Amino acid sequence: MLNTIILANGEIPVHKNAIEILKNGDQIVCCDGAIQNLKSLGFSPNIIIGDLDSISEKDKIEYQNILFEDKNEEVNDLQKAINYCISNNWYDIYILGGFGLREDHAIANLSIMLNYAKICFEKDTPLNIQMITNTGTFIPFFDTTIFKSYKGQAVSIFSFTKESKLTFIGLKYPVKERVFNYFWEGSLNEALTDQFTIECSRGEFIIFQTF
Amino acid sequence: MLNTIILANGEIPVHKNAIEILKNGDQIVCCDGAIQNLKSLGFSPNIIIGDLDSISEKDKIEYQNILFEDKNEEVNDLQKAINYCISNNWYDIYILGGFGLREDHAIANLSIMLNYAKICFEKDTPLNIQMITNTGTFIPFFDTTIFKSYKGQAVSIFSFTKESKLTFIGLKYPVKERVFNYFWEGSLNEALTDQFTIECSRGEFIIFQTF
Repeated sequence: MLNTIILANGEIPVHKNAIEILKNGDQIVCCDGAIQNLKSLGFSPNIIIGDLDSISEKDKIEYQNILFEDKNEEVNDLQKAINYCISNNWYDIYILGGFGLREDHAIANLSIMLNYAKICFEKDTPLNIQMITNTGTFIPFFDTTIFKSYKGQAVSIFSFTKESKLTFIGLKYPVKERVFNYFWEGSLNEALTDQFTIECSRGEFIIFQTF
Repeated sequence: MLNTIILANGEIPVHKNAIEILKNGDQIVCCDGAIQNLKSLGFSPNIIIGDLDSISEKDKIEYQNILFEDKNEEVNDLQKAINYCISNNWYDIYILGGFGLREDHAIANLSIMLNYAKICFEKDTPLNIQMITNTGTFIPFFDTTIFKSYKGQAVSIFSFTKESKLTFIGLKYPVKERVFNYFWEGSLNEALTDQFTIECSRGEFIIFQTF
């Protein structure tokens, strides 16, 4: 399977773990507004996607063979990038630059990731998608999951469904069959060993783990 | 009414509008981890609050008369600061430094603001609370509201209840009695004039408006 990196137009990746993931990508789908960031990191895009309003004339010429114009006003550049990946059956996706700068974009981007993951989960399509920031990783999940960790790793679990009960096993603050009404209630936990389990009835969740 | 600033331990305020709000505060409640940021901005705290693990011995001596120790492990420093404000009947609260750095802290902080606002709304206590970042303002609301704006202002509306129907009047992309299942669906809108209206049935919402 190809590892696909999507570089969105938020904060530039600088953490060594984020750069490592960028390096290990088999291909890079770059949102048009992020092309300068990608260049400054010393990487080349395989595809540049967006409405192409955010790219310089010079870059348009330099990258003319890999520009993919999508003028759809209903979706943002990250959605265009993910749509492009899925239409090519690229199901291992690491989103970088999804956070930072405009905070409402960051929240929307996280929700976009969850939305695509949910659609694929319901279709039994094996979409592996995660968002890498400069401090850690966001991963959507929908059912009981065992996560790799290390002792002392900071872990936050966000439940997007107020009906689902969650049980944390192997975290410093365990909970049992608890419904979370607010995001803060599942946040700022800590892994005790090299793995932990989140048991849940069906729902929509995102986990954050620090590097 | 006193305008109270809470400085949390995230990204330091640098935008001129954020600094202006800091300047216009009548008093500053500083989370202990944020004291260096506050000093670097040239402001003095009225209260420093937290478990006091994140403050230097030098600062502990300098600020010994205004330290408020709260060792409660169940709540984070922002919650300690808001609790302190509410217990003093300080109901006009501007949170700065709530975003940035750890992204899971940012999401938790936003949810904490919503949670307190909801509790006060249900008790008919007039809590005015908002979070100011370096790009704009997050404000919780629970019922139909008219918002001040300017032509072209970027606006995102996040619905935390999947049952509530929303109608946007005066925004570039109007909607009518729509339920939002994902945060991205109400994001990245734009004000057409100097005000707009969000009509909603009871629910839990946060609006973001750029400066």
